[in-house]
Amino acid sequence: MTDIYPSRRAAEPEMRPRQDPVVHGEWNNDAPISPAQAAQFDRDGYMILEDIFSDEEVAFLQRATGKLLADPAALDDETIVTEPQSNEVRSIFEIHRQNHCMARLAADARLADVARFLLGDEVYIHQSRLNYKPGFKGKEFYWHSDFETWHVEDGMPRMRALSMSILLAENTPHNGPLMVIPGSHHIYLTCVGETPDDHYLSSLKKQEYGVPDEDSLAELAHRHGIVAPTGKPGTVILFDCNLMHGSNCNITPFPRANAFLVYNAVSNWLEEPFGARKPRPWFLAHRGDPEPLTVEHGSLTGTVSA
Amino acid sequence: MTDIYPSRRAAEPEMRPRQDPVVHGEWNNDAPISPAQAAQFDRDGYMILEDIFSDEEVAFLQRATGKLLADPAALDDETIVTEPQSNEVRSIFEIHRQNHCMARLAADARLADVARFLLGDEVYIHQSRLNYKPGFKGKEFYWHSDFETWHVEDGMPRMRALSMSILLAENTPHNGPLMVIPGSHHIYLTCVGETPDDHYLSSLKKQEYGVPDEDSLAELAHRHGIVAPTGKPGTVILFDCNLMHGSNCNITPFPRANAFLVYNAVSNWLEEPFGARKPRPWFLAHRGDPEPLTVEHGSLTGTVSA
Repeated sequence: MTDIYPSRRAAEPEMRPRQDPVVHGEWNNDAPISPAQAAQFDRDGYMILEDIFSDEEVAFLQRATGKLLADPAALDDETIVTEPQSNEVRSIFEIHRQNHCMARLAADARLADVARFLLGDEVYIHQSRLNYKPGFKGKEFYWHSDFETWHVEDGMPRMRALSMSILLAENTPHNGPLMVIPGSHHIYLTCVGETPDDHYLSSLKKQEYGVPDEDSLAELAHRHGIVAPTGKPGTVILFDCNLMHGSNCNITPFPRANAFLVYNAVSNWLEEPFGARKPRPWFLAHRGDPEPLTVEHGSLTGTVSA
Repeated sequence: MTDIYPSRRAAEPEMRPRQDPVVHGEWNNDAPISPAQAAQFDRDGYMILEDIFSDEEVAFLQRATGKLLADPAALDDETIVTEPQSNEVRSIFEIHRQNHCMARLAADARLADVARFLLGDEVYIHQSRLNYKPGFKGKEFYWHSDFETWHVEDGMPRMRALSMSILLAENTPHNGPLMVIPGSHHIYLTCVGETPDDHYLSSLKKQEYGVPDEDSLAELAHRHGIVAPTGKPGTVILFDCNLMHGSNCNITPFPRANAFLVYNAVSNWLEEPFGARKPRPWFLAHRGDPEPLTVEHGSLTGTVSA
């Protein structure tokens, strides 16, 4: 089989054209977003949804987050990633299966229907996690395209997935917010260097393979600029699976927390990894024939208690 | 002699009242800044000067910076500080004595007269340096009050000094700009822990003593907020010697560079350190009876060549 998105094979990085649409659905009057929003997502590779959750729903999600962080012993050990050089929790994976509030969030029509429209298909959760960047000592996360890793290490065939970051604490310009290079999703930047076995054990703390080269990053940043969307708790940042993004560290006293949900089109289910000997473990990438998500309507707080 | 600003002595940190004015001069029609600017400096502890240098002067300073960074062998070894875990230059000290363009900058009326007014005295350069935060891997600089260190380790008796950061590359919200806690200069936050000998050898890379505690920082940040002034090259950020400040790391491709000049009132010349056995070396703090700066007028480029 030909690999249309090869990476980590050549000695030099390359900017190759994207082979897939960004917006897979056809806009119509029933679409869950406006034509302008769809056009912005297409052009820039990201989009913001504000004020879609009530204050009560935001508080509900924050309580659920507090519970996840407060009781790691209740969680599957494997799903917890700590900061490099400390035991502070950096990410908890598989939150939609370990917490019923997060499961309800992932299924919510206000998110899932937007994913279904943009991906032009039924969807399922490819990966979910809680990202926590503590105050004072939260570490940076270097630039990367998620798709590059998901393709090479997990076997995601096409660019037909997107991420949603649901802010659970205020993201300011100062506490290490998500930074994106708008428009960078239109090219596929290949990385240099083969993937070692069990790379994920270190890459979730600090990635050393599948890392974009500095010259290409500089070219992209000079061409497109850098944007760091900020917002109050409850704000949702959507971005394409191939958008170049990263975040700086956080010395402010204000921690940054968000729930992170990756929606994949069911037709884009995972094959064998395109550049690694064995796929990454279950909590990083859902494998097998996926069951389409059942979309839920109404308030988050209506059916389950936090 | 009583130490009115004791620090690193008690087991618990303390917020003590400031014992000195912030603006030492009396405003009059000949003052080099407006009453509103003086009031803002008094209240917030910082102030911004924009568009005071011509494009030609900014280019002149940038050329001088390039020369300093390009030829470390021409400089006094001791004055060069590299990044932790790499050989990349982080700071070059004593630039006003190692480069005639920087000497001319320090003496320039547009800066020195503002310092003379705010400090209500003749002034001299207590410390100068070039700060360079490289792209992709520039490290954070944790929160601190300069005065705390200058008092404890260098013997600066009173709060009658200020810093000017002259931006030499664009400072954006994303490339690790200076962050300040406006108004924090009105209190003196004492630190915990004694100062080890030769502390400066490591503290310029990563400070471990004279570090404010997290609870007090959180209290200050919640009370006053955090501001990160940004600007184009040539912008000057002035801040009081006791203002709490720091900066995040920089993963963007855009390096951050600034010239940093500390003006001290001649009447505030250094005594023996208030909390260390021996003073820090010459390039970190000018010692001895200071000669008042001779203020220079006209264009930076008029008298010396970069």
